[in-house]
Amino acid sequence: MEVKARAPGKIILAGEHAVVHGSTAVAAAIDLYTYVTLRLPLHLDENNDRLTLQLKDLSLEFSWSVARLKEEIPYDDSSNFSPSTPSSCSSETLKSIAALVEEQNIPEAKIWLSSGISTFLWLYTSILGFIPATVIITTELPYGSGLGSSAAFCVALTAALIASSGSDKTRGDGWSSLDETNLELLNKWAFEGEKIIHGKPSGIDNTVSAYGNMIKFCSGEITRLQTNMPLRMLITNTKVGRNTKALVAGVSERTVRHPEAMNSVFIAVDSISKEVAAIIQSKNENSVTEREERIKELMEMNQGLLESMGVSHSSIDTVMQTTLKHKLTSKLTGAGGGGCVLTLLPTLVSGTVVEKVVQELESSGFQCFTASIGGNGAEIYFCSD
Amino acid sequence: MEVKARAPGKIILAGEHAVVHGSTAVAAAIDLYTYVTLRLPLHLDENNDRLTLQLKDLSLEFSWSVARLKEEIPYDDSSNFSPSTPSSCSSETLKSIAALVEEQNIPEAKIWLSSGISTFLWLYTSILGFIPATVIITTELPYGSGLGSSAAFCVALTAALIASSGSDKTRGDGWSSLDETNLELLNKWAFEGEKIIHGKPSGIDNTVSAYGNMIKFCSGEITRLQTNMPLRMLITNTKVGRNTKALVAGVSERTVRHPEAMNSVFIAVDSISKEVAAIIQSKNENSVTEREERIKELMEMNQGLLESMGVSHSSIDTVMQTTLKHKLTSKLTGAGGGGCVLTLLPTLVSGTVVEKVVQELESSGFQCFTASIGGNGAEIYFCSD
Repeated sequence: MEVKARAPGKIILAGEHAVVHGSTAVAAAIDLYTYVTLRLPLHLDENNDRLTLQLKDLSLEFSWSVARLKEEIPYDDSSNFSPSTPSSCSSETLKSIAALVEEQNIPEAKIWLSSGISTFLWLYTSILGFIPATVIITTELPYGSGLGSSAAFCVALTAALIASSGSDKTRGDGWSSLDETNLELLNKWAFEGEKIIHGKPSGIDNTVSAYGNMIKFCSGEITRLQTNMPLRMLITNTKVGRNTKALVAGVSERTVRHPEAMNSVFIAVDSISKEVAAIIQSKNENSVTEREERIKELMEMNQGLLESMGVSHSSIDTVMQTTLKHKLTSKLTGAGGGGCVLTLLPTLVSGTVVEKVVQELESSGFQCFTASIGGNGAEIYFCSD
Repeated sequence: MEVKARAPGKIILAGEHAVVHGSTAVAAAIDLYTYVTLRLPLHLDENNDRLTLQLKDLSLEFSWSVARLKEEIPYDDSSNFSPSTPSSCSSETLKSIAALVEEQNIPEAKIWLSSGISTFLWLYTSILGFIPATVIITTELPYGSGLGSSAAFCVALTAALIASSGSDKTRGDGWSSLDETNLELLNKWAFEGEKIIHGKPSGIDNTVSAYGNMIKFCSGEITRLQTNMPLRMLITNTKVGRNTKALVAGVSERTVRHPEAMNSVFIAVDSISKEVAAIIQSKNENSVTEREERIKELMEMNQGLLESMGVSHSSIDTVMQTTLKHKLTSKLTGAGGGGCVLTLLPTLVSGTVVEKVVQELESSGFQCFTASIGGNGAEIYFCSD
């Protein structure tokens, strides 16, 4: 039996960093996906005892004997193993899993994959138990550049696991969503997976990836938004690696040094996020062009405020200047200090201009993606065989 | 008899644009001067009836018959002509003066000089009356790029006029300040002169030029500050002409569209200006290096906030990026949209680095000045002859 699942990445449209200090942030799904293909043997075969994980984009494969996994991972079958009630991975379990991951030959340069592979083993065995399978991952998202690749991985994997466990009854043609109950379940499992990778994730990434569309996030509370306008962005990956923790700490230290100024900056960002959310949800009071103009202005304002927090980077400036030459507005998205930059592509922008901008950015060594914003969340696909 | 006077230009250290919306701004004198040399004939000579103005840097000379000026300019001698009680130029007087200026052959490309030449005729005749003389102007300040060249012109000219009218008794060796009474008088006259050039000047430029040092400005109230630290800046003139009125209007329109966000931005700027003023006045609680670090950070924050107001420009970004490469922090100064950019030169920065930065900036077509901040105001110099 083969099940495919896909889950989108995300961008932060407004409010990054300030969200840590109580401001509202807005995040949106993008139509760049991580795909998971899950192949389960139709009949259990004593000769096939392997759980195999293929990371196609990295040309890496990892494989474990299912019997060994069962021996090593200390689940208490009677109580803990329960696919419909997501729980956190205990430190004891994580330790055993990490040992199993360490045995694999992960290339030194890709050692950051370890936590993702641990998450895989944990989600797989928690939801499907100890049965052999092949899981193939491909992704359109760059790893670790703030586009939510780890959440998309957790969500797509969990979607495939839930679908193949048979608990989802929606068997549409082609790609179809999960039902609300399973979406909720999926989101909870994915959040638990994100915890293994990130320690203390905000829950924004997995929620956007699971439900799609957009969300508003403030003081730990997530509100799903219904977008009423199409929005297209050019996403530029500067490929400059950043240290998110150091950037977040830097903003906090600056806030200690200049509390009055910084708190006003955070209040300004809060207003901007709320305005962005309102424009996106507004129903045709203004033309799309007018609404795009407003979003463009709010993006410019937010970028200025991010610069006043000290989280920009010369690579981001280069993207800003290149796009500005073509009258396009950009802002960093996520942690800053490199990472990714958003450029609004208005409905009326010509394809030639976009091509030119992309060409210029790529000749500076950046990687460009064009993405629609606020699309579908996790989806599954049952392959007829 | 020959008297020389000089008056400094100014920079806005913090708070431009936001000051229009009630925030505090900080301005400082720079050691770039406009010089005025005033030559009065020792004895009145019927054959010499000319008032001559030489603008050395522009290789321009204008000249009028004093008798003609007396005929054309409608002063009511008995009441209005009173050097010690500065008054505004009436629209009737200004009209007559403008006609006298129009007769001169001002090159088409320098037609913006007209109001400055009118100011000259008005200040000269109001303070010294109708006597022949030669007035020579030279300046280290670029015209019309936000460094207060017009105020420096008004202040230096008035200082020379007051000095030669004999009302100033301070006859020091070399350059010396005017006494407090005359400084006040000078500042008032210069403000009236600025009105002819700018319509509704804030009074910041002439106050800084007259008194030197630094000032804090908020809601029309000017407070003189006593600096307690040396501060050196690289000033880069992008040579991009800007329309100050349009930039100010743009910020106001943005404030109408996004009142909450923009008002928080203005509050943030207000805090920044107050912090800058406090650091500059603080007495050695922290080392110079520490204080420079704080000013650097506040400049970065202010620049981000100016960008969120939409008053930056790609030429400013270019200066930012060039200086950032050498770990130097910059912010626009004045109206933005081109104009001048400040770069803090910390005490410990090496001369080689500064040279390199200047070279790079000048190769981009910009003009660079190194200036000390917060120095002397207007000064006069009596030439022994």
